[in-house]
Amino acid sequence: MKAARFHGKRDIRIDEIPEPTVGPSQLKIKVAWNGICGSDLHDYLAGPIFSPQPGKPHPLSHEEPPVVFGHEISGTIVELGPDVDTNTFEAGRHVVIDAVVGCGTCSQCSLGLKNLCATLGLIGITGWGGGLSEYIVTDQRNVHVIPDSIPLDVAACIEPLAVAWHAANRANFQPGMNVLISGGGPIGLFVLKVLKARGAGKVYVSEPSTQRRNRALAHGADAVFNPLVSDVFSQVIAFNEGAGVEIAFECAGITPSLDNCLKCTRSRGTVCIIALWENEGTLNPNVLVFGEKVITGSACYVQCHPDVIAAVADGRINNVADLITRRIGLKDVVELGFEALVNDKENQIKILVRPA
Amino acid sequence: MKAARFHGKRDIRIDEIPEPTVGPSQLKIKVAWNGICGSDLHDYLAGPIFSPQPGKPHPLSHEEPPVVFGHEISGTIVELGPDVDTNTFEAGRHVVIDAVVGCGTCSQCSLGLKNLCATLGLIGITGWGGGLSEYIVTDQRNVHVIPDSIPLDVAACIEPLAVAWHAANRANFQPGMNVLISGGGPIGLFVLKVLKARGAGKVYVSEPSTQRRNRALAHGADAVFNPLVSDVFSQVIAFNEGAGVEIAFECAGITPSLDNCLKCTRSRGTVCIIALWENEGTLNPNVLVFGEKVITGSACYVQCHPDVIAAVADGRINNVADLITRRIGLKDVVELGFEALVNDKENQIKILVRPA
Repeated sequence: MKAARFHGKRDIRIDEIPEPTVGPSQLKIKVAWNGICGSDLHDYLAGPIFSPQPGKPHPLSHEEPPVVFGHEISGTIVELGPDVDTNTFEAGRHVVIDAVVGCGTCSQCSLGLKNLCATLGLIGITGWGGGLSEYIVTDQRNVHVIPDSIPLDVAACIEPLAVAWHAANRANFQPGMNVLISGGGPIGLFVLKVLKARGAGKVYVSEPSTQRRNRALAHGADAVFNPLVSDVFSQVIAFNEGAGVEIAFECAGITPSLDNCLKCTRSRGTVCIIALWENEGTLNPNVLVFGEKVITGSACYVQCHPDVIAAVADGRINNVADLITRRIGLKDVVELGFEALVNDKENQIKILVRPA
Repeated sequence: MKAARFHGKRDIRIDEIPEPTVGPSQLKIKVAWNGICGSDLHDYLAGPIFSPQPGKPHPLSHEEPPVVFGHEISGTIVELGPDVDTNTFEAGRHVVIDAVVGCGTCSQCSLGLKNLCATLGLIGITGWGGGLSEYIVTDQRNVHVIPDSIPLDVAACIEPLAVAWHAANRANFQPGMNVLISGGGPIGLFVLKVLKARGAGKVYVSEPSTQRRNRALAHGADAVFNPLVSDVFSQVIAFNEGAGVEIAFECAGITPSLDNCLKCTRSRGTVCIIALWENEGTLNPNVLVFGEKVITGSACYVQCHPDVIAAVADGRINNVADLITRRIGLKDVVELGFEALVNDKENQIKILVRPA
């Protein structure tokens, strides 16, 4: 079968590889759609970062480059290993994949926090095949059946929605809270959709791109600000009845964004960093001290898929297809996929790839 | 009466000022001892910082320079205003002062968090007299009676102990937790004493000064490290059975200390900043993200005095007098007090002043 494999920095190739075969507790899934993610882009532009280095196999997958890419996966079960739970899974059912793989034995895995595993693996980044190929086999623990009512293209967005859902959990988000999202890229917009689905009060989005600000408004933002031309703190205070927000989500990965998040958050409020940063940032710790504010981070997700699937199925999270800006075939994954996300940030949010 | 007043940077003078008179709900207290605090030093060396600027009266005290200094106060009640609660207070009782003054009406004060008041005031820094004078009058809300069993010199340390106690609350400290204290100055050592009193597991102290490391060991630290010659992370991991600590208290106010705190804290652990920083720091947010760690800050204290007084009275917090490195009179407050704390950090921890 054909698969898009990551060979190294700016080197993704469509390779012919053997079709995978199911192990005892594994499912073989025919991939319907695979979304391209920001962390894929990090690896593509400057990697290997998350993906294993040449000569240094990942401790869990034991794989080194090239690895099949793609971890935002929807598809259809085509084969079940002999030990798979047939009460849950059957051929023909639509599924999505939880890409997080823990070692299962470390202190964090023992607490159920595989996303914090010391040797964290991610399907489609650190090995185990990926969604940018016709088939993938995956342990049943990582597979979630979805209702047929969820279209398979929308289903490919359940993985990034789980990232957003988990961030809301990490920030102790509660219905009614007023929130700032700093950065209106794909993850910022998914956070917006999750917060609105979970009963947020006002959600403000700070984002330099006009197109992205307009998208944020279309997806429920109560106000949007351009941080390059207006003072985000003054704007938030003006819109938020003179008070800071309970939570700010840092989705841009740069110091001015973190500064705005800290400034706009009320005393004892929380700044939750979701962005991966390419450089160190600067911090004025006295702002944390005098306001007893909290900064935390959110890593992938854990046990979020059932909640997200339910919210998409019952319409609390809706219009997801609006954020799919392009659908392409596997052969176009570099030019119309990765390169488009690098060069056309204004217009591209989520690009889905149909591998076969 | 004589009072040490802060006139400006490196300008503290012993002035003759009128003896204060009690208002209806105020107590007149004869000061026994007043400790010199790190924030006093910040103002002395580079102020006014917390203290009001010339021509800009503090919004609550309406005072501007010069202000009487001193907020770590113990003393004896000598006079009660007519509205003072005589079930709680009587002449001759020993007391300590909670120096934090909120406006009483802002959103934080309404939540009982006067330490986060938008116009926060501090007795002995932003006005209302101070402990570096023979008498002070203070509203009964800010006065706590102590048992006669607590010596008045030790009692002057209850205020900084409340700072440490509050930081443990902010970090959600629980008995049995293993902790790193980064910085073994006065506040780090008080944090050490509070944590041991509250049932900490292992407490590690990182501190460059040999004298301070020895003091930390004498006051219950399980291990001490010199961050200038050894890798604090490796040391903590080695002493802590291969794991990170649950909480790290940042008591040094510099980036290498914050880095060590973040590195040494386990996933989902908390770094609590108590130090006031003179400069911005740098931060690698990815460390927060991948470990879902938390950084927060602790500001002064709120509702901690009763707990601290009880812990000192029943001996859970003991040997406090050991941390009093010098006792001086008011006339020597600059030379033997402030200047000694600036120039003899190795040997000085808490210097107490007897104003009369």
